[in-house]
Amino acid sequence: MTDKLIVLPEEECLRLLAHGHYGRVAFVDDGRPIVLPVNYVFDRGFVVFRSTVGSKLEAAVSQQHVAFQIDAVDPMYHGGFSVLAYGPTEVVESATEVLRLSELALRPWWPAARDRWIRIRVDEVTGRRLRDEE
Amino acid sequence: MTDKLIVLPEEECLRLLAHGHYGRVAFVDDGRPIVLPVNYVFDRGFVVFRSTVGSKLEAAVSQQHVAFQIDAVDPMYHGGFSVLAYGPTEVVESATEVLRLSELALRPWWPAARDRWIRIRVDEVTGRRLRDEE
Repeated sequence: MTDKLIVLPEEECLRLLAHGHYGRVAFVDDGRPIVLPVNYVFDRGFVVFRSTVGSKLEAAVSQQHVAFQIDAVDPMYHGGFSVLAYGPTEVVESATEVLRLSELALRPWWPAARDRWIRIRVDEVTGRRLRDEE
Repeated sequence: MTDKLIVLPEEECLRLLAHGHYGRVAFVDDGRPIVLPVNYVFDRGFVVFRSTVGSKLEAAVSQQHVAFQIDAVDPMYHGGFSVLAYGPTEVVESATEVLRLSELALRPWWPAARDRWIRIRVDEVTGRRLRDEE
């Protein structure tokens, strides 16, 4: 049995992003990497999540660019994938957009995370899949 | 039903780290946050994982400090936790230590990751648990 690490094409990374609902926002805070879990939806090329004004997660928004990561592992067969996206963040200000996003299936991971819609434009995405081969 | 976010005490964070075997190393590469999955063991206050010389993960070692994150979610009940550790990295150079670590249950996530043992000293750790309460 040999492990095989496969570099995923961009389309596959985007497909995995579109199918996920839980991931991690990673950003740099005072030189230190911070990784925080969020529920998200992938909408029109953006990773969308909700946050609270003044929260730790809010610091991500002040960054020009952040990373977003999803993964899944199958411990039994030691298979899995990891996708890492990167791009600029923005607060969704348009009331029309907020209304539209409200209708997508998205529940904030952080209970008080109801104040703001934030999105990350996925400018770059890379991914790997690990597969056991016999 | 109300969500409740509980700040975990340090002992609980360390217990969760000790029980996990899969997490993510986060570091800053040229100003950009990078998040890479690893299998790990928690050994004597260190997160220990394996890496390959010249790999992307190897860049983490050149950092003075990195973050390490684990989480788990229960989508059905919307419960879960996230733990974020932080500390300096070091390559394990001692042959005795490498031998001892080799006997711990650790399989590298990256198939070629067999060249080096790296560890992160957990200087700081924080965590949150989310629980649905009726």
